[in-house]
Amino acid sequence: MTNHLNKNFQRKERPNFTLEQFVSGIEKGDTTVLSQAITLLESENVSQSKLASTLVSEILQRKLANQKSLRIGITGVPGVGKSTFIESFGYYLAENGHKVAVLAIDPSSQKSGGSILGDKTRMERLVQHPNVFIRPSPSRGTLGGVAKATRESMLLCEAAGFSILLIETVGVGQSEIAVRGMVDFFLLLMLAGAGDELQGIKRGIMEMADALVITKAENENVNEARKAMAEYKNALHLFPSAESGWIPQVEMCSALTNFNIDKVWAMIEGYQNQMMINGYLERNRQQQAKYWLNERIVELLKSSFFGETRISLALKELEKQVINGTISPFLAAEQLVERFIHER
Amino acid sequence: MTNHLNKNFQRKERPNFTLEQFVSGIEKGDTTVLSQAITLLESENVSQSKLASTLVSEILQRKLANQKSLRIGITGVPGVGKSTFIESFGYYLAENGHKVAVLAIDPSSQKSGGSILGDKTRMERLVQHPNVFIRPSPSRGTLGGVAKATRESMLLCEAAGFSILLIETVGVGQSEIAVRGMVDFFLLLMLAGAGDELQGIKRGIMEMADALVITKAENENVNEARKAMAEYKNALHLFPSAESGWIPQVEMCSALTNFNIDKVWAMIEGYQNQMMINGYLERNRQQQAKYWLNERIVELLKSSFFGETRISLALKELEKQVINGTISPFLAAEQLVERFIHER
Repeated sequence: MTNHLNKNFQRKERPNFTLEQFVSGIEKGDTTVLSQAITLLESENVSQSKLASTLVSEILQRKLANQKSLRIGITGVPGVGKSTFIESFGYYLAENGHKVAVLAIDPSSQKSGGSILGDKTRMERLVQHPNVFIRPSPSRGTLGGVAKATRESMLLCEAAGFSILLIETVGVGQSEIAVRGMVDFFLLLMLAGAGDELQGIKRGIMEMADALVITKAENENVNEARKAMAEYKNALHLFPSAESGWIPQVEMCSALTNFNIDKVWAMIEGYQNQMMINGYLERNRQQQAKYWLNERIVELLKSSFFGETRISLALKELEKQVINGTISPFLAAEQLVERFIHER
Repeated sequence: MTNHLNKNFQRKERPNFTLEQFVSGIEKGDTTVLSQAITLLESENVSQSKLASTLVSEILQRKLANQKSLRIGITGVPGVGKSTFIESFGYYLAENGHKVAVLAIDPSSQKSGGSILGDKTRMERLVQHPNVFIRPSPSRGTLGGVAKATRESMLLCEAAGFSILLIETVGVGQSEIAVRGMVDFFLLLMLAGAGDELQGIKRGIMEMADALVITKAENENVNEARKAMAEYKNALHLFPSAESGWIPQVEMCSALTNFNIDKVWAMIEGYQNQMMINGYLERNRQQQAKYWLNERIVELLKSSFFGETRISLALKELEKQVINGTISPFLAAEQLVERFIHER
């Protein structure tokens, strides 16, 4: 009994599956194994992180991940009703036979551990659906680190048979760019009646969106939502056309009454079909992979450089001289990079 | 005779002053020496570039650069009348006893060789003023490379006795951020009657400006300029307040009739006085030096990495695998950076 408990405890704290157990568990769609594999991905422990890398490589080399999946990024400011929308939208998809995984990325709130975590109780109905897997991601580390975990978690979910992935992010800027760079479709949730200023939505985020959906279009809000739709449609006209040839759509819905939830899905499904035919979906994923390769290279170069003690000591010294104006920042940079690369 | 010509020719193509000759020439305010020193800074020849670095170090260590100088960045879309404004504004300053240096930074138009170059004829009156030094910068190389040359050129100008530096840039985005990061005051020139969209001005550039000046406020344009001033004043209210405590000003002027040129200078002088008293001017320059140190480090890390043949060959190979989906971009990045740093 004690032994059994202990074993469970150990398993929870530090997964001790073998590589093969991870692969076959994921292949079978075992969400306990999937969940523990994602924990591995997020781990800062070196040996766990190595195992995670090997696992991802195995999944990729054996081509286990479902290539026909659809990755949907969902963003909007706090209060727009992201969780409620995801609950309603995800439930609709699950009821229609789709296997749905919900992931969260939120590098901005280092303390809360991801916005979705606190909302988990609000997603009670969704979390109990047999076709659904919900995974809050603790937000720590660099944006690239969070992006790595999220991007590779998507792969694992796809290998476990999930065909629609909902990636939630908070409308604050940096994390949107990261999420935009890893999804097929980017959905921006908006409130009617609140000015752009109030919503804290940067124009740049609107430009990234494949669709704007006005939430809370219920009861007395419907008219205002309709007005907002018209305004946003006009605004979107001013934006340059997307590489995909897709014209961003504006919709309204209510997660409370389920009004238009089917319409939102029909729109996204239309996008998927169109982009599969014109090849953009695949091309975009390839570009995204290249993008992350480059991003990660630069991030690793920086962390290696600034993480080396001898360099950070020399940097501190030179920084003083740069601030005093006795050495040019450009010359100081040259000296430091020269030392980093050639003196080992 | 032939010998004399030849010597002049050589001097023009490849300055053969010694370090000491450069330093003393600049200290004396000899603009021929100054001009050749800037050519050194811009050179891609290794030995010339080394000499340039040593020269800048000498200037810095001997504290030859005038610390009381004022660096003014001037931007605006093509057609706003930058050259005409600089001619009129620069002439006004020179006539009032200031020594004025005009530099151009324009990394976007690699072919034209800097926008100011073509405008030089239009600045005929300014270029002949004994208190004025005009230097077009050829735009080639990376943004950081151009920034390095411009920033260090400013130092040399300050060492040569120039107390007001006008740094011209074209309103296209990236170069504004670079120039913003090396000046004390950032001036955005605007046309009345043209919408923001038309002017190609990104909101981000307006947010960086310490002042907006409506140009061409002459004859029948004056009323429209006055209207535009009011609108921009309203718009600026929405922006977060600057770290300096300075509230961005809106002004209008005419470079044709010299209307309000004195007012623009009075405003900038007011800024300078206020920021010298509250210490922001110095603090900002220190922060800028740190910023360039960091920027240059990252740029050098990237150019060293991507410039190594063995790395670029391995990158090409891994990029194919990343695109085929047989290796994770994150793992590929790790392998490449590991090789770059530890295998030499």
